[in-house]
Amino acid sequence: MHFTSEQRLDDGVLEREFTLGEIPGILWTPASASASASASAPVPLILLGHPPLGLRKMYPRLVARARHSAAEGFATATIELPGSGDRPRLPAAEQARADLRRAMEAGEPVSDEMVDALILPLVEKAVPEWQAALDALLSLPEIGGPVGYSGGVISIGIRLAVVEPRIVAAGFFAGSFVPRAMFEEARQVTIPLHVLLQWDDEGNDRQAALDLFDAFGSKEKSLHANMGGHTGVPQFAGEDAAQFFTRHLK
Amino acid sequence: MHFTSEQRLDDGVLEREFTLGEIPGILWTPASASASASASAPVPLILLGHPPLGLRKMYPRLVARARHSAAEGFATATIELPGSGDRPRLPAAEQARADLRRAMEAGEPVSDEMVDALILPLVEKAVPEWQAALDALLSLPEIGGPVGYSGGVISIGIRLAVVEPRIVAAGFFAGSFVPRAMFEEARQVTIPLHVLLQWDDEGNDRQAALDLFDAFGSKEKSLHANMGGHTGVPQFAGEDAAQFFTRHLK
Repeated sequence: MHFTSEQRLDDGVLEREFTLGEIPGILWTPASASASASASAPVPLILLGHPPLGLRKMYPRLVARARHSAAEGFATATIELPGSGDRPRLPAAEQARADLRRAMEAGEPVSDEMVDALILPLVEKAVPEWQAALDALLSLPEIGGPVGYSGGVISIGIRLAVVEPRIVAAGFFAGSFVPRAMFEEARQVTIPLHVLLQWDDEGNDRQAALDLFDAFGSKEKSLHANMGGHTGVPQFAGEDAAQFFTRHLK
Repeated sequence: MHFTSEQRLDDGVLEREFTLGEIPGILWTPASASASASASAPVPLILLGHPPLGLRKMYPRLVARARHSAAEGFATATIELPGSGDRPRLPAAEQARADLRRAMEAGEPVSDEMVDALILPLVEKAVPEWQAALDALLSLPEIGGPVGYSGGVISIGIRLAVVEPRIVAAGFFAGSFVPRAMFEEARQVTIPLHVLLQWDDEGNDRQAALDLFDAFGSKEKSLHANMGGHTGVPQFAGEDAAQFFTRHLK
Protein backbone atom coordinates (compact mmCIF):
# COMPACT_ATOMS: atom_id res chain seq x y z
CA MET A 1 0.00 0.00 0.00
CA HIS A 2 1.53 3.27 -1.17
CA PHE A 3 0.12 6.65 -0.31
CA THR A 4 0.18 8.87 -3.39
CA SER A 5 -1.39 12.07 -2.07
CA GLU A 6 -2.52 13.57 1.20
CA GLN A 7 -4.74 16.52 2.10
CA ARG A 8 -6.55 17.86 5.15
CA LEU A 9 -10.20 18.63 4.46
CA ASP A 10 -11.69 21.73 6.07
CA ASP A 11 -13.17 19.69 8.91
CA GLY A 12 -9.77 18.27 9.77
CA VAL A 13 -10.37 14.88 8.14
CA LEU A 14 -7.17 13.52 6.59
CA GLU A 15 -7.77 12.23 3.06
CA ARG A 16 -5.06 10.03 1.58
CA GLU A 17 -5.11 8.46 -1.86
CA PHE A 18 -3.26 5.20 -2.15
CA THR A 19 -2.52 2.38 -4.52
CA LEU A 20 -2.62 -1.27 -3.59
CA GLY A 21 -0.76 -2.91 -6.44
CA GLU A 22 -2.70 -1.64 -9.45
CA ILE A 23 -5.78 -0.70 -7.46
CA PRO A 24 -6.39 2.93 -6.47
CA GLY A 25 -8.10 3.71 -3.20
CA ILE A 26 -8.82 6.46 -0.69
CA LEU A 27 -8.49 6.46 3.08
CA TRP A 28 -10.12 9.04 5.32
CA THR A 29 -9.21 9.32 8.99
CA PRO A 30 -10.79 11.59 11.63
CA ALA A 31 -8.91 14.71 12.69
CA SER A 32 -8.34 13.05 16.05
CA ALA A 33 -6.69 9.92 14.64
CA SER A 34 -2.93 9.92 14.56
CA ALA A 35 -0.36 7.76 12.80
CA SER A 36 1.58 7.88 16.04
CA ALA A 37 -0.04 5.02 17.89
CA SER A 38 0.92 6.49 21.22
CA ALA A 39 -0.87 9.77 20.54
CA SER A 40 -4.42 8.40 20.25
CA ALA A 41 -6.24 5.09 20.27
CA PRO A 42 -6.62 3.41 16.89
CA VAL A 43 -10.06 3.99 15.37
CA PRO A 44 -12.63 1.56 13.95
CA LEU A 45 -12.89 1.27 10.17
CA ILE A 46 -15.82 1.28 7.76
CA LEU A 47 -15.24 0.05 4.22
CA LEU A 48 -17.27 2.22 1.86
CA GLY A 49 -18.83 0.22 -0.96
CA HIS A 50 -20.04 1.98 -4.10
CA PRO A 51 -21.55 1.17 -7.49
CA PRO A 52 -19.16 0.35 -10.36
CA LEU A 53 -19.17 3.87 -11.78
CA GLY A 54 -15.61 4.80 -10.93
CA LEU A 55 -14.17 6.41 -7.81
CA ARG A 56 -13.83 9.79 -9.51
CA LYS A 57 -17.51 9.94 -10.35
CA MET A 58 -18.50 8.61 -6.92
CA TYR A 59 -16.12 10.93 -5.03
CA PRO A 60 -18.65 13.59 -3.93
CA ARG A 61 -20.94 11.01 -2.33
CA LEU A 62 -18.03 9.01 -0.88
CA VAL A 63 -16.36 12.00 0.75
CA ALA A 64 -19.70 13.06 2.26
CA ARG A 65 -20.09 9.59 3.81
CA ALA A 66 -16.45 9.71 4.95
CA ARG A 67 -16.92 13.09 6.67
CA HIS A 68 -20.04 11.91 8.49
CA SER A 69 -18.27 8.74 9.61
CA ALA A 70 -15.20 10.71 10.72
CA ALA A 71 -17.42 12.91 12.87
CA GLU A 72 -18.51 9.70 14.63
CA GLY A 73 -14.89 8.67 15.12
CA PHE A 74 -14.58 6.18 12.26
CA ALA A 75 -11.92 5.85 9.60
CA THR A 76 -13.31 4.98 6.18
CA ALA A 77 -11.70 3.57 3.08
CA THR A 78 -12.67 2.53 -0.40
CA ILE A 79 -11.00 1.03 -3.46
CA GLU A 80 -11.76 1.15 -7.15
CA LEU A 81 -13.86 -1.79 -8.35
CA PRO A 82 -12.53 -4.14 -11.05
CA GLY A 83 -13.29 -2.74 -14.52
CA SER A 84 -14.17 0.75 -13.21
CA GLY A 85 -12.43 4.11 -13.27
CA ASP A 86 -8.93 3.90 -14.72
CA ARG A 87 -8.72 0.14 -14.20
CA PRO A 88 -8.72 -2.15 -17.25
CA ARG A 89 -12.19 -2.89 -18.57
CA LEU A 90 -13.63 -6.39 -18.06
CA PRO A 91 -14.94 -7.27 -21.52
CA ALA A 92 -17.44 -9.87 -20.28
CA ALA A 93 -18.91 -7.47 -17.74
CA GLU A 94 -19.07 -4.68 -20.36
CA GLN A 95 -20.97 -7.05 -22.63
CA ALA A 96 -23.32 -8.06 -19.83
CA ARG A 97 -23.98 -4.41 -18.95
CA ALA A 98 -24.71 -3.57 -22.59
CA ASP A 99 -27.08 -6.55 -22.89
CA LEU A 100 -28.86 -5.58 -19.72
CA ARG A 101 -29.21 -1.94 -20.71
CA ARG A 102 -30.55 -2.94 -24.11
CA ALA A 103 -33.13 -5.24 -22.53
CA MET A 104 -34.28 -2.55 -20.10
CA GLU A 105 -34.53 0.11 -22.81
CA ALA A 106 -36.54 -2.28 -24.95
CA GLY A 107 -38.84 -2.94 -22.00
CA GLU A 108 -37.82 -6.61 -22.03
CA PRO A 109 -37.39 -8.63 -18.85
CA VAL A 110 -33.91 -8.82 -17.37
CA SER A 111 -33.00 -12.51 -17.31
CA ASP A 112 -31.26 -14.29 -14.46
CA GLU A 113 -28.43 -15.06 -16.89
CA MET A 114 -27.85 -11.36 -17.60
CA VAL A 115 -27.75 -10.55 -13.89
CA ASP A 116 -25.39 -13.45 -13.20
CA ALA A 117 -23.08 -12.37 -16.03
CA LEU A 118 -22.99 -8.82 -14.75
CA ILE A 119 -22.59 -9.43 -11.02
CA LEU A 120 -20.96 -12.78 -10.29
CA PRO A 121 -17.57 -12.11 -11.98
CA LEU A 122 -17.47 -8.71 -10.26
CA VAL A 123 -18.01 -10.38 -6.87
CA GLU A 124 -15.38 -13.04 -7.58
CA LYS A 125 -12.79 -10.46 -8.53
CA ALA A 126 -13.63 -7.66 -6.10
CA VAL A 127 -13.95 -9.55 -2.81
CA PRO A 128 -10.29 -10.71 -2.57
CA GLU A 129 -9.25 -7.15 -3.41
CA TRP A 130 -11.29 -5.71 -0.55
CA GLN A 131 -9.76 -8.33 1.73
CA ALA A 132 -6.26 -7.35 0.61
CA ALA A 133 -7.13 -3.71 1.23
CA LEU A 134 -8.31 -4.68 4.70
CA ASP A 135 -4.97 -6.39 5.41
CA ALA A 136 -3.11 -3.24 4.43
CA LEU A 137 -5.43 -0.83 6.23
CA LEU A 138 -5.39 -2.77 9.49
CA SER A 139 -1.59 -2.72 9.46
CA LEU A 140 -1.65 1.08 9.85
CA PRO A 141 -1.17 2.11 13.49
CA GLU A 142 -4.01 4.64 13.41
CA ILE A 143 -6.56 2.04 12.21
CA GLY A 144 -7.78 -0.51 14.72
CA GLY A 145 -11.04 -2.31 14.47
CA PRO A 146 -13.69 -3.51 14.52
CA VAL A 147 -14.52 -3.25 10.82
CA GLY A 148 -17.84 -2.54 9.14
CA TYR A 149 -18.84 -2.64 5.49
CA SER A 150 -21.31 -0.16 4.07
CA GLY A 151 -23.24 0.19 0.82
CA GLY A 152 -22.29 -0.41 -2.75
CA VAL A 153 -23.00 -3.54 -4.80
CA ILE A 154 -24.96 -5.62 -2.29
CA SER A 155 -23.67 -8.94 -3.66
CA ILE A 156 -20.08 -7.89 -2.90
CA GLY A 157 -21.20 -7.00 0.61
CA ILE A 158 -22.94 -10.34 1.07
CA ARG A 159 -19.89 -12.32 -0.05
CA LEU A 160 -17.60 -10.21 2.16
CA ALA A 161 -19.91 -10.73 5.14
CA VAL A 162 -19.74 -14.49 4.57
CA VAL A 163 -16.01 -14.92 3.95
CA GLU A 164 -14.37 -12.11 5.93
CA PRO A 165 -14.56 -12.64 9.71
CA ARG A 166 -12.99 -9.26 10.45
CA ILE A 167 -16.18 -7.55 9.22
CA VAL A 168 -18.52 -7.54 12.21
CA ALA A 169 -21.44 -5.44 10.95
CA ALA A 170 -22.71 -4.38 7.54
CA GLY A 171 -25.03 -1.76 6.11
CA PHE A 172 -26.47 -2.80 2.77
CA PHE A 173 -28.37 -0.83 0.15
CA ALA A 174 -30.99 -3.08 -1.44
CA GLY A 175 -30.87 -1.35 -4.78
CA SER A 176 -29.05 -3.48 -7.31
CA PHE A 177 -29.54 -6.62 -9.33
CA VAL A 178 -28.94 -9.69 -7.19
CA PRO A 179 -28.09 -13.09 -8.71
CA ARG A 180 -30.29 -15.94 -7.48
CA ALA A 181 -27.21 -17.66 -6.04
CA MET A 182 -26.69 -14.74 -3.66
CA PHE A 183 -30.04 -15.46 -1.97
CA GLU A 184 -28.60 -18.78 -0.83
CA GLU A 185 -25.39 -17.10 0.21
CA ALA A 186 -27.41 -14.54 2.19
CA ARG A 187 -28.57 -17.35 4.50
CA GLN A 188 -24.95 -17.78 5.60
CA VAL A 189 -24.64 -14.16 6.71
CA THR A 190 -24.81 -13.99 10.50
CA ILE A 191 -23.41 -10.53 11.39
CA PRO A 192 -25.76 -7.68 12.37
CA LEU A 193 -27.21 -6.01 9.26
CA HIS A 194 -28.77 -2.66 8.54
CA VAL A 195 -30.54 -2.78 5.16
CA LEU A 196 -31.77 0.32 3.34
CA LEU A 197 -34.51 0.04 0.74
CA GLN A 198 -35.84 2.86 -1.40
CA TRP A 199 -39.51 1.94 -1.67
CA ASP A 200 -39.97 3.40 -5.16
CA ASP A 201 -36.55 2.54 -6.56
CA GLU A 202 -37.22 2.48 -10.31
CA GLY A 203 -34.44 0.01 -11.10
CA ASN A 204 -35.10 -2.32 -8.22
CA ASP A 205 -37.53 -5.18 -7.65
CA ARG A 206 -39.08 -4.39 -4.27
CA GLN A 207 -40.29 -7.93 -3.67
CA ALA A 208 -36.83 -9.32 -4.45
CA ALA A 209 -35.35 -6.89 -1.94
CA LEU A 210 -37.84 -8.02 0.73
CA ASP A 211 -37.10 -11.67 -0.07
CA LEU A 212 -33.37 -10.99 0.22
CA PHE A 213 -33.87 -9.30 3.59
CA ASP A 214 -35.89 -12.31 4.72
CA ALA A 215 -33.13 -14.66 3.56
CA PHE A 216 -30.31 -13.16 5.63
CA GLY A 217 -29.35 -15.53 8.43
CA SER A 218 -28.49 -12.73 10.86
CA LYS A 219 -30.24 -12.72 14.19
CA GLU A 220 -30.09 -8.93 14.25
CA LYS A 221 -31.17 -7.40 10.97
CA SER A 222 -33.18 -4.26 10.35
CA LEU A 223 -34.83 -3.10 7.15
CA HIS A 224 -35.28 0.65 6.79
CA ALA A 225 -37.54 1.44 3.86
CA ASN A 226 -37.95 5.06 2.84
CA MET A 227 -39.86 6.84 0.15
CA GLY A 228 -38.27 7.90 -3.07
CA GLY A 229 -36.19 6.57 -5.92
CA HIS A 230 -32.75 5.05 -6.11
CA THR A 231 -30.82 8.23 -5.35
CA GLY A 232 -33.40 9.76 -3.00
CA VAL A 233 -32.20 8.27 0.30
CA PRO A 234 -33.27 10.83 2.93
CA GLN A 235 -30.64 12.35 5.15
CA PHE A 236 -32.16 10.89 8.32
CA ALA A 237 -31.66 7.39 6.86
CA GLY A 238 -27.94 8.09 6.85
CA GLU A 239 -28.14 9.13 10.48
CA ASP A 240 -29.91 5.90 11.43
CA ALA A 241 -27.21 3.93 9.60
CA ALA A 242 -24.52 5.87 11.47
CA GLN A 243 -26.13 4.87 14.75
CA PHE A 244 -26.14 1.25 13.64
CA PHE A 245 -22.36 1.39 13.13
CA THR A 246 -21.85 3.25 16.39
CA ARG A 247 -23.74 0.48 18.19
CA HIS A 248 -21.64 -2.27 16.64
CA LEU A 249 -18.17 -0.81 16.10
CA LYS A 250 -17.66 1.07 19.35
CA MET B 1 -60.20 17.13 32.90
CA HIS B 2 -59.59 16.54 36.60
CA PHE B 3 -56.26 15.54 38.04
CA THR B 4 -56.75 12.78 40.60
CA SER B 5 -53.16 12.07 41.67
CA GLU B 6 -49.70 13.46 41.18
CA GLN B 7 -46.23 12.08 41.79
CA ARG B 8 -42.65 12.90 40.83
CA LEU B 9 -40.79 9.92 39.40
CA ASP B 10 -37.14 9.49 40.36
CA ASP B 11 -35.97 11.14 37.13
CA GLY B 12 -38.03 14.23 37.87
CA VAL B 13 -40.84 13.40 35.45
CA LEU B 14 -44.20 14.56 36.79
CA GLU B 15 -46.85 11.83 36.49
CA ARG B 16 -50.45 12.91 36.89
CA GLU B 17 -53.49 10.69 36.66
CA PHE B 18 -56.62 12.37 35.44
CA THR B 19 -60.18 11.69 34.44
CA LEU B 20 -61.84 13.14 31.41
CA GLY B 21 -65.51 12.56 32.11
CA GLU B 22 -65.60 8.80 32.75
CA ILE B 23 -62.27 8.15 31.01
CA PRO B 24 -59.11 7.68 33.09
CA GLY B 25 -55.82 8.88 31.71
CA ILE B 26 -52.21 9.68 32.62
CA LEU B 27 -50.11 12.70 31.74
CA TRP B 28 -46.32 12.75 32.04
CA THR B 29 -44.38 16.01 31.77
CA PRO B 30 -40.59 16.47 31.76
CA ALA B 31 -38.91 17.75 34.91
CA SER B 32 -38.22 21.00 33.09
CA ALA B 33 -41.86 21.68 32.15
CA SER B 34 -43.73 24.01 34.41
CA ALA B 35 -47.39 24.80 34.86
CA SER B 36 -46.33 28.41 35.15
CA ALA B 37 -46.19 29.40 31.51
CA SER B 38 -43.72 32.15 32.24
CA ALA B 39 -41.22 29.77 33.83
CA SER B 40 -40.52 27.61 30.76
CA ALA B 41 -41.66 27.22 27.20
CA PRO B 42 -44.61 24.84 26.67
CA VAL B 43 -43.46 21.42 25.46
CA PRO B 44 -44.58 19.30 22.50
CA LEU B 45 -46.92 16.38 23.21
CA ILE B 46 -46.93 12.75 22.12
CA LEU B 47 -50.13 10.75 22.57
CA LEU B 48 -49.20 7.22 23.62
CA GLY B 49 -51.40 4.61 22.00
CA HIS B 50 -51.59 1.09 23.46
CA PRO B 51 -53.40 -2.21 22.90
CA PRO B 52 -56.81 -2.65 24.57
CA LEU B 53 -55.45 -4.51 27.60
CA GLY B 54 -56.12 -1.84 30.21
CA LEU B 55 -53.92 1.03 31.37
CA ARG B 56 -52.99 -0.78 34.59
CA LYS B 57 -51.59 -3.76 32.71
CA MET B 58 -49.87 -1.53 30.16
CA TYR B 59 -48.44 0.86 32.77
CA PRO B 60 -44.86 -0.50 32.91
CA ARG B 61 -44.40 -0.18 29.15
CA LEU B 62 -46.19 3.17 29.02
CA VAL B 63 -44.15 4.76 31.78
CA ALA B 64 -40.94 3.55 30.12
CA ARG B 65 -41.98 5.24 26.87
CA ALA B 66 -43.01 8.34 28.82
CA ARG B 67 -39.62 8.57 30.59
CA HIS B 68 -37.73 8.24 27.30
CA SER B 69 -39.90 10.90 25.70
CA ALA B 70 -39.51 13.21 28.69
CA ALA B 71 -35.73 12.93 28.37
CA GLU B 72 -36.16 14.28 24.83
CA GLY B 73 -38.29 17.15 26.10
CA PHE B 74 -41.74 15.77 25.26
CA ALA B 75 -44.86 15.53 27.36
CA THR B 76 -46.79 12.30 26.84
CA ALA B 77 -50.34 11.33 27.64
CA THR B 78 -52.62 8.37 27.28
CA ILE B 79 -56.22 7.47 28.03
CA GLU B 80 -58.01 4.20 28.71
CA LEU B 81 -59.55 2.66 25.60
CA PRO B 82 -63.31 2.02 25.42
CA GLY B 83 -64.13 -1.35 26.98
CA SER B 84 -60.72 -1.73 28.66
CA GLY B 85 -59.49 -1.45 32.25
CA ASP B 86 -62.23 -0.25 34.60
CA ARG B 87 -64.37 1.11 31.79
CA PRO B 88 -67.65 -0.64 30.94
CA ARG B 89 -67.20 -3.64 28.66
CA LEU B 90 -68.38 -3.36 25.05
CA PRO B 91 -70.41 -6.57 24.57
CA ALA B 92 -70.04 -6.63 20.76
CA ALA B 93 -66.27 -6.21 20.98
CA GLU B 94 -66.04 -8.91 23.68
CA GLN B 95 -67.99 -11.24 21.43
CA ALA B 96 -65.76 -10.42 18.46
CA ARG B 97 -62.62 -10.99 20.52
CA ALA B 98 -63.93 -14.35 21.74
CA ASP B 99 -64.82 -15.39 18.18
CA LEU B 100 -61.42 -14.36 16.93
CA ARG B 101 -59.56 -16.14 19.71
CA ARG B 102 -61.60 -19.30 19.13
CA ALA B 103 -60.80 -19.22 15.40
CA MET B 104 -57.09 -18.71 16.03
CA GLU B 105 -56.91 -21.48 18.61
CA ALA B 106 -58.71 -23.82 16.22
CA GLY B 107 -56.21 -22.89 13.50
CA GLU B 108 -59.03 -21.46 11.40
CA PRO B 109 -58.62 -18.36 9.25
CA VAL B 110 -59.58 -15.05 10.81
CA SER B 111 -62.29 -13.61 8.61
CA ASP B 112 -62.57 -9.99 7.51
CA GLU B 113 -65.90 -9.85 9.36
CA MET B 114 -64.28 -10.84 12.66
CA VAL B 115 -61.58 -8.19 12.27
CA ASP B 116 -64.14 -5.54 11.33
CA ALA B 117 -66.31 -6.46 14.34
CA LEU B 118 -63.33 -6.24 16.67
CA ILE B 119 -61.67 -3.08 15.40
CA LEU B 120 -64.13 -0.76 13.68
CA PRO B 121 -66.39 -0.05 16.71
CA LEU B 122 -63.26 0.54 18.80
CA VAL B 123 -62.00 3.10 16.27
CA GLU B 124 -65.40 4.82 16.09
CA LYS B 125 -65.62 5.17 19.84
CA ALA B 126 -61.97 5.81 20.73
CA VAL B 127 -61.03 8.49 18.19
CA PRO B 128 -63.41 11.22 19.46
CA GLU B 129 -62.19 10.45 23.00
CA TRP B 130 -58.55 10.97 22.04
CA GLN B 131 -59.58 14.21 20.34
CA ALA B 132 -61.36 15.36 23.50
CA ALA B 133 -58.26 14.46 25.52
CA LEU B 134 -56.20 16.51 23.08
CA ASP B 135 -58.49 19.52 23.62
CA ALA B 136 -58.01 19.25 27.38
CA LEU B 137 -54.26 18.59 27.26
CA LEU B 138 -53.55 21.49 24.91
CA SER B 139 -55.41 23.84 27.24
CA LEU B 140 -52.74 23.24 29.92
CA PRO B 141 -50.14 26.03 29.96
CA GLU B 142 -47.20 23.59 30.13
CA ILE B 143 -48.32 21.71 27.00
CA GLY B 144 -47.79 23.39 23.66
CA GLY B 145 -47.47 21.56 20.43
CA PRO B 146 -46.90 20.19 17.95
CA VAL B 147 -48.58 16.86 18.68
CA GLY B 148 -47.52 13.37 17.68
CA TYR B 149 -49.29 10.04 18.03
CA SER B 150 -47.37 6.86 18.79
CA GLY B 151 -48.15 3.16 18.81
CA GLY B 152 -51.18 1.23 19.95
CA VAL B 153 -54.01 -0.02 17.77
CA ILE B 154 -52.85 1.07 14.34
CA SER B 155 -56.40 1.62 13.03
CA ILE B 156 -57.03 4.20 15.77
CA GLY B 157 -53.79 5.91 14.74
CA ILE B 158 -54.76 5.90 11.08
CA ARG B 159 -58.18 7.44 11.77
CA LEU B 160 -56.65 10.05 14.09
CA ALA B 161 -54.05 10.93 11.47
CA VAL B 162 -56.83 11.46 8.94
CA VAL B 163 -59.33 13.43 11.03
CA GLU B 164 -57.16 15.31 13.55
CA PRO B 165 -55.11 18.11 11.97
CA ARG B 166 -53.32 18.89 15.23
CA ILE B 167 -51.43 15.59 14.93
CA VAL B 168 -48.46 16.36 12.67
CA ALA B 169 -46.48 13.10 12.82
CA ALA B 170 -47.25 9.51 13.81
CA GLY B 171 -45.33 6.42 14.79
CA PHE B 172 -47.28 3.24 14.07
CA PHE B 173 -46.71 -0.35 15.14
CA ALA B 174 -47.79 -2.66 12.33
CA GLY B 175 -48.79 -5.45 14.63
CA SER B 176 -52.55 -5.71 14.88
CA PHE B 177 -55.49 -6.82 12.81
CA VAL B 178 -56.42 -4.14 10.28
CA PRO B 179 -59.88 -3.97 8.70
CA ARG B 180 -59.86 -3.79 4.90
CA ALA B 181 -61.59 -0.40 5.09
CA MET B 182 -58.56 1.03 6.89
CA PHE B 183 -56.35 0.35 3.86
CA GLU B 184 -58.47 2.84 1.93
CA GLU B 185 -58.34 5.27 4.84
CA ALA B 186 -54.55 4.88 4.94
CA ARG B 187 -54.36 6.51 1.49
CA GLN B 188 -55.74 9.70 3.05
CA VAL B 189 -52.94 9.92 5.61
CA THR B 190 -50.46 12.60 4.56
CA ILE B 191 -48.44 13.35 7.71
CA PRO B 192 -44.91 11.94 8.15
CA LEU B 193 -45.02 8.34 9.39
CA HIS B 194 -42.60 6.05 11.15
CA VAL B 195 -43.84 2.46 10.94
CA LEU B 196 -42.40 -0.36 13.03
CA LEU B 197 -42.79 -3.95 11.90
CA GLN B 198 -41.67 -7.04 13.80
CA TRP B 199 -40.61 -9.33 10.96
CA ASP B 200 -41.59 -12.55 12.76
CA ASP B 201 -44.66 -11.25 14.59
CA GLU B 202 -46.61 -14.45 15.21
CA GLY B 203 -50.01 -12.71 15.30
CA ASN B 204 -49.42 -10.47 12.33
CA ASP B 205 -49.67 -10.93 8.58
CA ARG B 206 -46.37 -9.56 7.27
CA GLN B 207 -47.63 -9.07 3.73
CA ALA B 208 -50.67 -7.16 5.02
CA ALA B 209 -48.35 -4.91 7.00
CA LEU B 210 -46.23 -4.24 3.90
CA ASP B 211 -49.38 -3.54 1.86
CA LEU B 212 -50.59 -1.13 4.53
CA PHE B 213 -47.25 0.69 4.53
CA ASP B 214 -47.47 0.93 0.75
CA ALA B 215 -51.00 2.33 1.00
CA PHE B 216 -50.19 5.30 3.22
CA GLY B 217 -50.46 8.54 1.27
CA SER B 218 -47.66 10.25 3.17
CA LYS B 219 -44.79 11.65 1.17
CA GLU B 220 -42.44 10.91 4.07
CA LYS B 221 -42.92 7.45 5.49
CA SER B 222 -40.34 5.00 6.78
CA LEU B 223 -40.73 1.33 7.55
CA HIS B 224 -38.39 -0.08 10.17
CA ALA B 225 -38.55 -3.85 10.23
CA ASN B 226 -36.69 -5.69 12.96
CA MET B 227 -36.27 -9.30 13.90
CA GLY B 228 -38.33 -10.93 16.58
CA GLY B 229 -41.90 -11.45 17.65
CA HIS B 230 -44.67 -9.08 18.63
CA THR B 231 -43.16 -8.01 21.94
CA GLY B 232 -39.52 -8.23 20.88
CA VAL B 233 -39.04 -4.70 19.55
CA PRO B 234 -35.32 -3.98 20.07
CA GLN B 235 -34.30 -1.01 22.17
CA PHE B 236 -32.57 0.70 19.26
CA ALA B 237 -35.89 0.73 17.37
CA GLY B 238 -37.28 2.90 20.14
CA GLU B 239 -34.32 5.25 19.75
CA ASP B 240 -34.92 5.56 16.01
CA ALA B 241 -38.57 6.35 16.71
CA ALA B 242 -37.54 8.98 19.25
CA GLN B 243 -35.39 10.65 16.59
CA PHE B 244 -38.34 10.65 14.21
CA PHE B 245 -40.40 12.61 16.73
CA THR B 246 -37.51 14.93 17.51
CA ARG B 247 -37.25 15.73 13.78
CA HIS B 248 -40.93 16.49 13.46
CA LEU B 249 -42.04 17.93 16.79
CA LYS B 250 -39.12 20.25 17.55
